[in-house]
Amino acid sequence: MYIRKQRLLTPGPTPLYPPALHAMMASDIHHRTEDFRKAYRSCLADLKEVLATANDVLLFASSGTGAMDATVSNLFSKGDKVIVCSAGKFGERWAEIAQAYGLDATVLSAPYGKVVAPAEVERALAKEPAIKGVFVQASETSTGAAHDVRAMGRAVAATDAIFVVDAITGLGTMPLDIDGWGLDVLIGGSQKAFMVPPGLAFLSISPKAWKFAGTATLPHYYFNLKKEKKSGDGGESSWTPATSLVLALAESLRYIKQLGMPKLIENAQILAQATRAAAVRLGLELFAPDAPAASATAVKAPEGMDSGVIVKEFRNRFGAIIANGQGSMKGQIFRIAHLGYFDFADLFAVIAGLEIILNANGFPVNYGAGVAAVEEVYESVAIRQPVAV
Amino acid sequence: MYIRKQRLLTPGPTPLYPPALHAMMASDIHHRTEDFRKAYRSCLADLKEVLATANDVLLFASSGTGAMDATVSNLFSKGDKVIVCSAGKFGERWAEIAQAYGLDATVLSAPYGKVVAPAEVERALAKEPAIKGVFVQASETSTGAAHDVRAMGRAVAATDAIFVVDAITGLGTMPLDIDGWGLDVLIGGSQKAFMVPPGLAFLSISPKAWKFAGTATLPHYYFNLKKEKKSGDGGESSWTPATSLVLALAESLRYIKQLGMPKLIENAQILAQATRAAAVRLGLELFAPDAPAASATAVKAPEGMDSGVIVKEFRNRFGAIIANGQGSMKGQIFRIAHLGYFDFADLFAVIAGLEIILNANGFPVNYGAGVAAVEEVYESVAIRQPVAV
Repeated sequence: MYIRKQRLLTPGPTPLYPPALHAMMASDIHHRTEDFRKAYRSCLADLKEVLATANDVLLFASSGTGAMDATVSNLFSKGDKVIVCSAGKFGERWAEIAQAYGLDATVLSAPYGKVVAPAEVERALAKEPAIKGVFVQASETSTGAAHDVRAMGRAVAATDAIFVVDAITGLGTMPLDIDGWGLDVLIGGSQKAFMVPPGLAFLSISPKAWKFAGTATLPHYYFNLKKEKKSGDGGESSWTPATSLVLALAESLRYIKQLGMPKLIENAQILAQATRAAAVRLGLELFAPDAPAASATAVKAPEGMDSGVIVKEFRNRFGAIIANGQGSMKGQIFRIAHLGYFDFADLFAVIAGLEIILNANGFPVNYGAGVAAVEEVYESVAIRQPVAV
Repeated sequence: MYIRKQRLLTPGPTPLYPPALHAMMASDIHHRTEDFRKAYRSCLADLKEVLATANDVLLFASSGTGAMDATVSNLFSKGDKVIVCSAGKFGERWAEIAQAYGLDATVLSAPYGKVVAPAEVERALAKEPAIKGVFVQASETSTGAAHDVRAMGRAVAATDAIFVVDAITGLGTMPLDIDGWGLDVLIGGSQKAFMVPPGLAFLSISPKAWKFAGTATLPHYYFNLKKEKKSGDGGESSWTPATSLVLALAESLRYIKQLGMPKLIENAQILAQATRAAAVRLGLELFAPDAPAASATAVKAPEGMDSGVIVKEFRNRFGAIIANGQGSMKGQIFRIAHLGYFDFADLFAVIAGLEIILNANGFPVNYGAGVAAVEEVYESVAIRQPVAV
């Protein structure tokens, strides 16, 4: 009761992989040395490997939004016609960036909790052959919904436009065949399934997208894809890199390679499945039941209960930081994350805590009922895994 | 399923208090400087404060066994008659140390899971007036049983003998009124309720016990109580101190002072109560039901199941390290710890994991049943705690 360990269980920053954290202690290193170049090269090579792409991969000292900005400012020109798929707060961010740089954006909007259908993208592309880019979130973190980027990629590949995918919470939580599905630019961040603190963004860029860099005219300086590619080939970054984070990412990438990206994805998907089962068992309603993402599960607060109460009681009763809704969903939903360094023991504790919080706030549930649902999912998928005894 | 965070949940080493761990990073410090003396003095003063004693407190770079050895080698002479209360592996250690130094020990034994009654000590003292010392464990970690050191202290105080209490897992898990109960020497270790890694032991020593130091003739060198007292008064240790651990302990003592020792004890006691409730609800048998300690709860493995299977499956399925039985209890019992930096979220996860492991190994239990018992204990003691929302 009195001791409450701090547990960071949000969809970013996510729980840290301890050896990655320890690796940061070695950051009394200079970035223009062969020692650091080794770590930087290892990061770039391992990112390419876990992203399973032949495309170039570039790394930035920035948040994920920095890589989103870099894509627009490096690959487009003022007045370019683009399509923005918007199904939540991060879709709105694409629209804001497009507007900031003077692009001519057609926004295909889905209500929060829903997604934009690939057919809509196809129709919009057919209507306007001059479209130069399509922007989307693989996983819309604010609502816990996932887009069908495979089908969308097929539609975009048939045109001259490039497909730009914010996979910041999609990476490590859903299959993303960058080369096979035509995901021309794919963006990720360190503080998501990559298990390290915020401060690094990266993107992969296809040959089709590189051609855009040759003709684009928007101004940019810090984010310079061509310069960064050249620097990266030399094992360096264009500007001073976030050394401690690069050392951490190099370490967590070793773990992800060892685990295997498909297993990391499956881990998130099973925890998401178990969370949905528990929520339903407790009589709660899922916010995005049609296209649930495995990055985070958004659950509606019971009728008449502010989801902020649930979030605050998690922190005050159990020291656990879970996420409220964002934007207009604040107070309506709460989000339980699964991306990256999460395990079943985390989820057992979260669901038991949720049961107590619901009961304490006038929404009666049977103690243990939600946890039992999680245990049943564990049993269905994992009970027969070989256990070395 | 695939990600299993390592969770150290044994009765020592115990989970680490993160700020204490971070404090170790400052250990590029020399131990004969005013900077370090400040930390060392703070440790000694804060230990005295949380132990709530007027007795001297001494600190050693050693495991708890070192402080046990120090007590015997500094306060006794070859052939001294002593009483050893032995109710498990650590009681046996007192007997071994007494034997190693040639003391004439009467061993009062209780079977594993039981405790030595204070009346037995009283009888033994009455029978032999030449007894110079009585040795006991406040909490016998190997069986999860607690001795009534208050009643024993009363019996010893009426004689010329000194009362030597191994409170290595008793401290922070049960009330111990050192001065009021006549606990002449009381021994603790860093890696228990003090939430830092192993490597530091400490003891408090009463004026009555100090007199023994004046006449004792056993040889000793590294462990020298008088020398250590003099060093400590100068803010130093006699030999090179374990600097990183001292910095860590100084930090965790600040936390314990802020929390309050009574709250730390209550925390362990409530978690122990909830663990017992869960074990009974799942149809398991407690190993020390008569005098259960709050440091760790020992539970019998179901008939025909090796407790080692439970321990190993905890590690392999959930990344959690719990404790097997020790000595002759290995394979018979498993132990769930509560001492120090443990919270309800830890326990929810442990009990859910236990349910899965029992079911997977032919001992059917209802999923969620044990967790519900923990949640009910939480509700009974903590649901009304003010939660700032």
